[in-house]
Amino acid sequence: MGKTIAEKIFSAHVGRDVKAGDLVIAKLDALMGQDGTSPLAIKVFEELGGEKVVNADRVLLVMDHSVPPPNEGVANLHKLMRDFAEKYGTQITEFGEGVCHQVFMERGLATPGSLVIGADSHTCTYGVLNCFSTGVGSSELAAAMYTGKLWFKVPSTVKIILNGKLSKGVVSKDVILFLAGYFKADGLTYKAIEFDGEVINNLSIDGRATITNMVVEMGAKAGIMPFDEKTKEFFKSIGLPQEKGVEADPDAEYEAVYEFNLSNLEPQVALPHTVDNVYPISQIENIKIHEAFIGTCTNGRLEDLRLAASILKGRKVAKNVKMIVTPASKRIFMQAMKEGLVDIFLEAGAIVTNPGCGPCVGTHQGVPADGENIISTANRNFKGRMGNNKAFIYLASPLTVAASAVLGKITDPRELLS
Amino acid sequence: MGKTIAEKIFSAHVGRDVKAGDLVIAKLDALMGQDGTSPLAIKVFEELGGEKVVNADRVLLVMDHSVPPPNEGVANLHKLMRDFAEKYGTQITEFGEGVCHQVFMERGLATPGSLVIGADSHTCTYGVLNCFSTGVGSSELAAAMYTGKLWFKVPSTVKIILNGKLSKGVVSKDVILFLAGYFKADGLTYKAIEFDGEVINNLSIDGRATITNMVVEMGAKAGIMPFDEKTKEFFKSIGLPQEKGVEADPDAEYEAVYEFNLSNLEPQVALPHTVDNVYPISQIENIKIHEAFIGTCTNGRLEDLRLAASILKGRKVAKNVKMIVTPASKRIFMQAMKEGLVDIFLEAGAIVTNPGCGPCVGTHQGVPADGENIISTANRNFKGRMGNNKAFIYLASPLTVAASAVLGKITDPRELLS
Repeated sequence: MGKTIAEKIFSAHVGRDVKAGDLVIAKLDALMGQDGTSPLAIKVFEELGGEKVVNADRVLLVMDHSVPPPNEGVANLHKLMRDFAEKYGTQITEFGEGVCHQVFMERGLATPGSLVIGADSHTCTYGVLNCFSTGVGSSELAAAMYTGKLWFKVPSTVKIILNGKLSKGVVSKDVILFLAGYFKADGLTYKAIEFDGEVINNLSIDGRATITNMVVEMGAKAGIMPFDEKTKEFFKSIGLPQEKGVEADPDAEYEAVYEFNLSNLEPQVALPHTVDNVYPISQIENIKIHEAFIGTCTNGRLEDLRLAASILKGRKVAKNVKMIVTPASKRIFMQAMKEGLVDIFLEAGAIVTNPGCGPCVGTHQGVPADGENIISTANRNFKGRMGNNKAFIYLASPLTVAASAVLGKITDPRELLS
Repeated sequence: MGKTIAEKIFSAHVGRDVKAGDLVIAKLDALMGQDGTSPLAIKVFEELGGEKVVNADRVLLVMDHSVPPPNEGVANLHKLMRDFAEKYGTQITEFGEGVCHQVFMERGLATPGSLVIGADSHTCTYGVLNCFSTGVGSSELAAAMYTGKLWFKVPSTVKIILNGKLSKGVVSKDVILFLAGYFKADGLTYKAIEFDGEVINNLSIDGRATITNMVVEMGAKAGIMPFDEKTKEFFKSIGLPQEKGVEADPDAEYEAVYEFNLSNLEPQVALPHTVDNVYPISQIENIKIHEAFIGTCTNGRLEDLRLAASILKGRKVAKNVKMIVTPASKRIFMQAMKEGLVDIFLEAGAIVTNPGCGPCVGTHQGVPADGENIISTANRNFKGRMGNNKAFIYLASPLTVAASAVLGKITDPRELLS
């Protein structure tokens, strides 16, 4: 019987042929912790009596959720992380280097066929690079730093084939919101997803990453994109050329195969307070917005900023709409400056913050007021997510967020595209 | 008997000849409140039964101390300010427009000979533009919005003449730190200061503003710079040409006249925990630093960023030093991008935040950890000022802060200047 991509990756990391449903202990290629989760992982690591971090140079600690520190508590936790990285020789981000998932990929820690964990739900993002990556808890990260391994049940795989051509104004965020609305929050619990089809082939790496980033919003353990010329191009751009990816065998066994034709998909919006509460934008009327946010591990990449700028160029954000743009990494920020995107945002009336998670997680840099509606490119809209449980979060694409910022209400971006 | 500049300005705003020591009620030309002080002013204004803000178009409310909002409390206060501005027709800043004092000047609200108050201690900054401006409390701001007037005791004036030529690596921040060390925190309480002399003549408007910004650190009510070609140039640059300033009469009566020759002045540093605890840098050895901050109403202007960049260009911030650069306004941020300064900071390893007060006031965006030493271009180093009362703040010029960031310890910038 042939193998899925997930089965192949696990087999390689367990040292024998394994298949969906097997309980295994697998060797890990790289680990990640951010400033919300690393402090507890460090504590547990020390309680375990850890003296050495296994493959420390493949462990990255990231200060992104609250940077620069909004309070002394966070500042002290960052210090703890720096001291730990110094003592055990792990990697640690430069100050303001960016959002964990983006930086992890830019540093070349996720490679095709690798098995990666990170103490953050959206670690599944790296699947865009044809690896198996998944989020774990802080104590699992601690155990993995201690042993270099972790136990898993090898997930069964569903294949999602996306056919057709996205129409103008419809982008990858609309695709994954549509899928989240279709499968619902628990529809693919603990599955690995293999993506395929014309829509995927036509998306850039940035666009695909938005999709793998959000597979966890359907409960999936991982989402894996095919390896192709675009993947090669990405690795070339970070100075770590990769020639080979992992493909499923033709006779691999899938738990299910779903096909969608997305040629008629319109822009999608997730309404408060769940990610799967998704509607096509034509069904949404007269929702005034007070804050618009472009950024995060979902949509803070260069392509996202270009999309937003294509709407905002020469336009102004509506009066009293607080627009925040947060590039996902310093590398992206610098490229965005070079391309004039930052100027476009500032001239439109937006705030451009330093790279980081910004207001997505409610720690700082854009917590909304009571009763405000926010339209955001983030991946979650749970009550209180942005730091105020009296606010209402709508999720959409960078195009939709930018268009909505301009008109001060949720707006179909196709109205503003020339 | 002739008049000082302060006496002339007050006479013009009271409607009769007044002199130092007189108690007067004076008409105000423009008012300012920031997000730390406006909310209380709004509350008092409403308790007074205010129905109309006098000269509302000359009242500017600024969201700068905590922007974007680090928590829901601040977000709600910003909303209160927006609603007030909308209702009464006052000016209010664009989201992320910058630090109150910088924005107030960029918007042309402080003009030569005008009388200005602001609910922030460092409102004295505008004296750089040859006006009388001073900080007041929130309830005084409320009364002033209600009546358009405020009572004052006309201050007596001291004249400070700064002779000589500053040597390379010595800038206006060193001048005002030296003066703060000389006069001490209460040495010029309630005085108006007239500045003059070759050193002042040679400084740019940006450089002079650093000096007027900090006169309150010696207790002064106001610091006033002469009107000259550079002042004219500034007003031309903001599209509000001014042809005439206010000069003291030759026989004006000063409480005291001080002359200093600053040709041998070296870079100065204020040590924790008071601004007047000032030493020449040659007397300071082996102070390791953990955070370096360039920004604020004192030193977040274009010239300051250029100075910092002159040190940081092609160099790296020392490992584990958290360097933060916060332009004082969006206008400055955009110009700094254009000149490549932002690239220099990012390449050096600094975080560049959105314009605002940043970590200076301890509200967010760079609160230090316990036991850390910070070198900062701000105007105050009181215990707890940056949000952690277990941290130690050193004040210095942008050159000194940048040099210290590079070497990881307090460093004489002349060591790194080519």
